[in-house]
Amino acid sequence: MKPSIRKIISGIIPINEEYLDVFFSKFKVVSYKKGDYFVKEGQISRYLGFIVKGSLMCVYNKDGKEYIDEFSLDNEFISAYASFITGTPADKDIICLEDCELLILSYSNLQELYAMDPVFERTGRLIAEMLFINWQQRVKSLLLDDAETRYLKLAENRPDLIQRVPQYLVAQYLRVSPETLSRIRKNTSLQ
Amino acid sequence: MKPSIRKIISGIIPINEEYLDVFFSKFKVVSYKKGDYFVKEGQISRYLGFIVKGSLMCVYNKDGKEYIDEFSLDNEFISAYASFITGTPADKDIICLEDCELLILSYSNLQELYAMDPVFERTGRLIAEMLFINWQQRVKSLLLDDAETRYLKLAENRPDLIQRVPQYLVAQYLRVSPETLSRIRKNTSLQ
Repeated sequence: MKPSIRKIISGIIPINEEYLDVFFSKFKVVSYKKGDYFVKEGQISRYLGFIVKGSLMCVYNKDGKEYIDEFSLDNEFISAYASFITGTPADKDIICLEDCELLILSYSNLQELYAMDPVFERTGRLIAEMLFINWQQRVKSLLLDDAETRYLKLAENRPDLIQRVPQYLVAQYLRVSPETLSRIRKNTSLQ
Repeated sequence: MKPSIRKIISGIIPINEEYLDVFFSKFKVVSYKKGDYFVKEGQISRYLGFIVKGSLMCVYNKDGKEYIDEFSLDNEFISAYASFITGTPADKDIICLEDCELLILSYSNLQELYAMDPVFERTGRLIAEMLFINWQQRVKSLLLDDAETRYLKLAENRPDLIQRVPQYLVAQYLRVSPETLSRIRKNTSLQ
């Protein structure tokens, strides 16, 4: 594994080198092509993913319409978490927007880690807490922010995303037309 | 502690009686009056709460307007979690809608539990996972559901809430006028 990835992971998860070796020994590397599904709605999501390289989007489908839940890029975890944890069918698709390289961990391997040493329970707790806090912030943003504010936050917090994800998908995510997104970008001089 | 509460808690957290005793020995019981603040925006939230009795609402404030994030009732956990975990100022108010009895746990007592036995790390992980999944579902509902659907889900999943929370606050939560909520209630025959 690239040293950079170890560094990033150990920044997220405060565990030492030895535990990190054990942690990653349970993952396997998988490559996906642009357009591949990491998770398919209606199927049980068997893996937790960590994105080594690439970008993916989580999409809900309702009445023939797509609703983009989230984009995920390099060095982020990705999963249909409820499905993965509870073993129930996923309620969304997770699709590769670019060719991707993921580290994936099966549910049973994760349980083995938990049983092996309390440090992994702690790791799991810290990741779940981080995800919970992120999602609380998403609810807050959906409640409080207009499209322009949401765009500015995206540009500030995740500039890579703005560059790498097609603009019509960013517009769909912000729930505005591509024309409105163009206007916002012009207004905010971030074009 | 009432046996019913032990039963409910042990349903949420799969730990045995002995551990449950230790778990609750770290909590203290506090009473609040209707209108009291459990958390005040701008202050650090020092406690994780469990609602023995009563109802509370989490509210964001922006430009003189209130945005209701969530209602919480008996047998639910309550906190400004990001503030509690990170020790940063809370970005919302948590206000008692009725006289409340809460079990509260300080951050340092929680860390003591984590250090004491891995079962508490597991407990923390399971709670954080449950909260994360709940909040993912909230994002999904905000993206996909119209006010009528959100009302129907609320009435189905949390009928107590519809009965106990003032209707103008339910309307505010659903982001509709009180008149629209009245119409929805009439249409859905749940009045």
